[in-house]
Amino acid sequence: VSPPTVSRATWYHQASLFLLLATLLPAPATAAEGMWTFDNFPSARVSEELGVEVSADWLARMQRSTARLEGGCTGSFASPEGLVLTNNHCVWGCVRNLSSSERNLSEEGFYASTQEEELRCPGEQVSVLLGTQDVTREVGAATAGKDDEAANEARKQTLGELERACERDTNLECEAVALYAGGQYFLYRYRRFEDVRLVFAPELPIAAFGGDPDNFEFPRYCLDMSFLRVYEDGKPVSTPDFLEWRFEGPAAGEPVFVTGHPGSTQRLLTVAQLERLRNSTLPQYLLRNHELRGRLLQWAETGPEPQRLVSQRILNLDNALKVMRHRLFSLLDDRNLERKRAEEAQLRAGVAADPDLARAYGSAWGDIEKALHAYGPFADQHAWIASGGAFQSTLYGWALSLVRAAEEREKPSADRLEEYRDSELGGLERQLLAPVPVANELEALTLEFSLDKMREWLGPDDPYVRKLLGNDSPKELATRVVQGTRLDDPEVRRRLWEGGRSAIVASEDAMIELARRVDADARALRARYEAEVEAPVAAAAERIARARFAVLGTSHYPDATFTLRVTYGTVRGWDEKGTTIEPFTEIARIFERATGDDPFRLPPSWQQARTRLDGSTRFNLVADTDIIGGNSGSPMVDREGRLVGLVFDGNIHSIAGAYFFDPELNRTVAVHPAVMVESLDKIYRTRRLLEELGIASKAEN
Amino acid sequence: VSPPTVSRATWYHQASLFLLLATLLPAPATAAEGMWTFDNFPSARVSEELGVEVSADWLARMQRSTARLEGGCTGSFASPEGLVLTNNHCVWGCVRNLSSSERNLSEEGFYASTQEEELRCPGEQVSVLLGTQDVTREVGAATAGKDDEAANEARKQTLGELERACERDTNLECEAVALYAGGQYFLYRYRRFEDVRLVFAPELPIAAFGGDPDNFEFPRYCLDMSFLRVYEDGKPVSTPDFLEWRFEGPAAGEPVFVTGHPGSTQRLLTVAQLERLRNSTLPQYLLRNHELRGRLLQWAETGPEPQRLVSQRILNLDNALKVMRHRLFSLLDDRNLERKRAEEAQLRAGVAADPDLARAYGSAWGDIEKALHAYGPFADQHAWIASGGAFQSTLYGWALSLVRAAEEREKPSADRLEEYRDSELGGLERQLLAPVPVANELEALTLEFSLDKMREWLGPDDPYVRKLLGNDSPKELATRVVQGTRLDDPEVRRRLWEGGRSAIVASEDAMIELARRVDADARALRARYEAEVEAPVAAAAERIARARFAVLGTSHYPDATFTLRVTYGTVRGWDEKGTTIEPFTEIARIFERATGDDPFRLPPSWQQARTRLDGSTRFNLVADTDIIGGNSGSPMVDREGRLVGLVFDGNIHSIAGAYFFDPELNRTVAVHPAVMVESLDKIYRTRRLLEELGIASKAEN
Repeated sequence: VSPPTVSRATWYHQASLFLLLATLLPAPATAAEGMWTFDNFPSARVSEELGVEVSADWLARMQRSTARLEGGCTGSFASPEGLVLTNNHCVWGCVRNLSSSERNLSEEGFYASTQEEELRCPGEQVSVLLGTQDVTREVGAATAGKDDEAANEARKQTLGELERACERDTNLECEAVALYAGGQYFLYRYRRFEDVRLVFAPELPIAAFGGDPDNFEFPRYCLDMSFLRVYEDGKPVSTPDFLEWRFEGPAAGEPVFVTGHPGSTQRLLTVAQLERLRNSTLPQYLLRNHELRGRLLQWAETGPEPQRLVSQRILNLDNALKVMRHRLFSLLDDRNLERKRAEEAQLRAGVAADPDLARAYGSAWGDIEKALHAYGPFADQHAWIASGGAFQSTLYGWALSLVRAAEEREKPSADRLEEYRDSELGGLERQLLAPVPVANELEALTLEFSLDKMREWLGPDDPYVRKLLGNDSPKELATRVVQGTRLDDPEVRRRLWEGGRSAIVASEDAMIELARRVDADARALRARYEAEVEAPVAAAAERIARARFAVLGTSHYPDATFTLRVTYGTVRGWDEKGTTIEPFTEIARIFERATGDDPFRLPPSWQQARTRLDGSTRFNLVADTDIIGGNSGSPMVDREGRLVGLVFDGNIHSIAGAYFFDPELNRTVAVHPAVMVESLDKIYRTRRLLEELGIASKAEN
Repeated sequence: VSPPTVSRATWYHQASLFLLLATLLPAPATAAEGMWTFDNFPSARVSEELGVEVSADWLARMQRSTARLEGGCTGSFASPEGLVLTNNHCVWGCVRNLSSSERNLSEEGFYASTQEEELRCPGEQVSVLLGTQDVTREVGAATAGKDDEAANEARKQTLGELERACERDTNLECEAVALYAGGQYFLYRYRRFEDVRLVFAPELPIAAFGGDPDNFEFPRYCLDMSFLRVYEDGKPVSTPDFLEWRFEGPAAGEPVFVTGHPGSTQRLLTVAQLERLRNSTLPQYLLRNHELRGRLLQWAETGPEPQRLVSQRILNLDNALKVMRHRLFSLLDDRNLERKRAEEAQLRAGVAADPDLARAYGSAWGDIEKALHAYGPFADQHAWIASGGAFQSTLYGWALSLVRAAEEREKPSADRLEEYRDSELGGLERQLLAPVPVANELEALTLEFSLDKMREWLGPDDPYVRKLLGNDSPKELATRVVQGTRLDDPEVRRRLWEGGRSAIVASEDAMIELARRVDADARALRARYEAEVEAPVAAAAERIARARFAVLGTSHYPDATFTLRVTYGTVRGWDEKGTTIEPFTEIARIFERATGDDPFRLPPSWQQARTRLDGSTRFNLVADTDIIGGNSGSPMVDREGRLVGLVFDGNIHSIAGAYFFDPELNRTVAVHPAVMVESLDKIYRTRRLLEELGIASKAEN
């Protein structure tokens, strides 16, 4: 670990250069704000604000105890035998893939009462970060003196080569990461586990109690937990660094920390980029996916099997829609954008005030605007054709990967599309060949939907639309290719994967044919995007990051990148328009809140256990830590590093956290350890699990 | 007709007072901009710009030849025997109500080859404007010296009394109209026809060829026409003022006029009001209704009968979604709002520069902001509960009308909710008792959907939501009330209507019970809205209108209010990003464009007629007249007043016309008379109709 350090003296020096400016600029980070990298954790500030000394040892132990679920979540080791605690909603894919029309694990819940009963999750991968390496200098050397497009290419090449060299040298998974929008580049080294098995998952109705209406709300009552176990060579992996649980949970006002892999924030975007999100990206996403929600809800009405196939998918969609809706509303609030404009103007004034900085960085903001402007005329075509917006289908995704892999694998690794480089092929193969069930009727529905939306947005006279649909309607094309493909059979995919180019060229599979037909156009649009948009934006963002370091020092944190971060804060509620929201909920209230019908329906196990449960057991809690999607499943720990909560959500104000952190309102929502233990013990009777967690059962029989 | 007149001299005088200002202020109206009232038509300007002299006689004849379809469209008389030309999409409701699972008139089309075969459209009403009266002074006298809330009440009372007195005196339908957002008040007197029959409608696939993808696009190929006939006492009404058709249509560049009833524009709104549309009203509308679209599309997949029941409804929804989407995008374009801000700032500067104006009007903009701010905390509850957002159901609408009418009719007319005043009861009764078929499955679907959305937006803990749903899910409640109602039977509605309060109180009809349960809360929210939002906004808008007259004179036009207007312009295409769009399309191209599948499917009649048709016949055309929804079915006429087009749409740029008119891009789209005659003759063989139109058939057999 080799962090770039700028001493506090330097910070103050630079601040004093722009004293007037500095007083107006955003404070380095207020209160609990900040998703900090482990190498730049603000220990001094935490000591001052919370009275907690965070040691390097403590951080190292938290790093080894925190896992990344490659599907987009976080977990923590809960025993020395590879047991991983994460959210229930992080294993929905696994639960669905292990279910059938005969056995609906989502509805029934799952518990492996012996190790033999633990079921492998198709395609699931879990990683642990072992170390990081700063490669900013290597990237800088490779891109120096090049124009934007060449630099973009060189940057990718260099990072790809560094990844490959790292993997060769360490036998680990190595991933390049751009921090501070390109202000720093790192290699992250992970130990990756491919054999991940389901140990325990409660029923969906209690895990997601309140469904979409309660999502991002608090007070809250969700048992959003599950256990996985990582295996190697058929045996549980030894994980000596795990988190002990503090069953009674934290006190109100107590300092807490959250480690995990927040997915993505956009706090360092320029105003032009935020405006593009507001004016185009977010509205398009929302309009499209609200309509998809309507389709899926209505399709679910056609029978119990459709219901089973889409219920979790709808919940995921609901979640994403709520997030995007509130993000849009936060950007539509002109006060927020005005604050961003003021911050940007001040940073630019800081740059303009120093001739060297002005020369090096002054044009960067305008460069981004220009690139976004250049994107305008082909943005929709790029989104629908090249980024796959028109092809919402698992089968099509496989087909395109097979078609492209066959072509790309004939080239030297460095010349390939990024996602087909040698370092990526293993993961891709596993994804492609995993025995995931496919629902053809649903595939046809979503593919028809996305083709229809493509035609709506691009217009029937767009050349790509005409080429793709010809005299077909979206429905005809979707039906034909779904009926004419065998890619739902993993064995068929394997043969095409192994058969390479000749197998792909010879294939008469309708989905493969469609992918072959789209591929050239999609590549051309992608290449244009990379040259005209991605490259200049990447170059300009790097320069803005350097400008920010120069003006503000490094005591700020990078945007989330689905890499390991730690955030600190305290357990506390908030003031909601004059109403005080308390930080804890208790079990008793869920029984008053239940209606007998989704999404406020309690599963039978809970209805039956009502009298056995201690009603005063704490259920969910909130803290003012700074998290975002990807932190799902994150451990919330106390100063000793003991688990005091399982993060599963934020409150409604946390959604705007993608762009702005509001310490007064933004809250993390977690499952309390007490309700996990109470229900494992008295409802699910998971003796084996409780013993592994070091808890004696209190249940009476 | 007694228009407020401000002489040109006065205009110049006022302009010179604010000379600098006047040069920056929006020109009184550029090029073809303006939906002019007949009493304020800019004849001098038209003479100057187009070289056409428009006489009072010409205007009077156009007024008597133009009809209003109370469902929200325009029509024109096409013969002396009450024959009305309008759009096909204006009679979809009628066509659906006259169809059954056995006979799908939408798909088959309809032609009454004898007068006896003409079918009455349930609930359809057609009106002709006979005269208008300025009552601004009477309203001003009634509201003078009152606070906003009392003035709001007095204004409604006065207008209601004026309407009633007018109807008593004239035996006509009288409607009060606020022009210039309250700058003027008028009474409009209509002759209304209640017996409206369907004469001719082509098949939906040709009327709406291109469906949603082509909607608001051009080049275009829609035979969006139909004929109705108005009857009185069982006989066709005599309409000596009708429009002759100029079958060859207009030349490119020729001056044309459009008369009709544009529904609503918001060009005079303040910036604060536009921001509310952008930030709240439009996004909420779009998110909600895109999801409904998904539901309806998927429900239509469940069988031919659902397909028949919702196909036109989906097209209507598509249309509304496209409109609202492009309106939102126009407001998200900061350049547009900046222009509005600049205009508003300049008008306010003009007011501030004169102490008298400043005292009278200076605070009006701030008052609107305050009222919108006051609306915030209960806006969602008002929209969902009081405005009926939660109750998307025809049956529920009837139930609420019955419940309220029973209570209101016991009060003196002046004390009632506006829509239950004596002047409204006749129309309400006809609406309620019209034999409109109801699809219960669809009713349950839309009601469940809207209840679900209500819970989503208000949250499950909102007191109205808890009171309404209790332990029910939206689906349970919707299913129960739809199953438990008999309101689908017009006879049941009639008994409840005639039975009055005692019948309503005694009713055990589930929908009536629901309406009874909601009514008090809905009334309370409505009263709060009227007091805290509507009243201050109405008062402030009146003052802004007066300020605008004071600073700008009256040579501007009021926002559209579904009252008679006339707009002028020329037949011309436009420049679309460097491509010249020609103003005419021809028949030949539609056959190349057809795909055999919706929405690009030609009906069998057209497929069979291909060789008989003259391919060079003009199909659709565009002109730069200024129209909006409500103008559907409007006649486009030449300087002689001969029909040269049937307005049915605008181009994509016309959508932003709700807020801003862009003379370079905004275009009206019309059906050419040539394609109407060609198809009536060679495809539909409507001899009787052609004779009535004064055309000899050219068809060979």
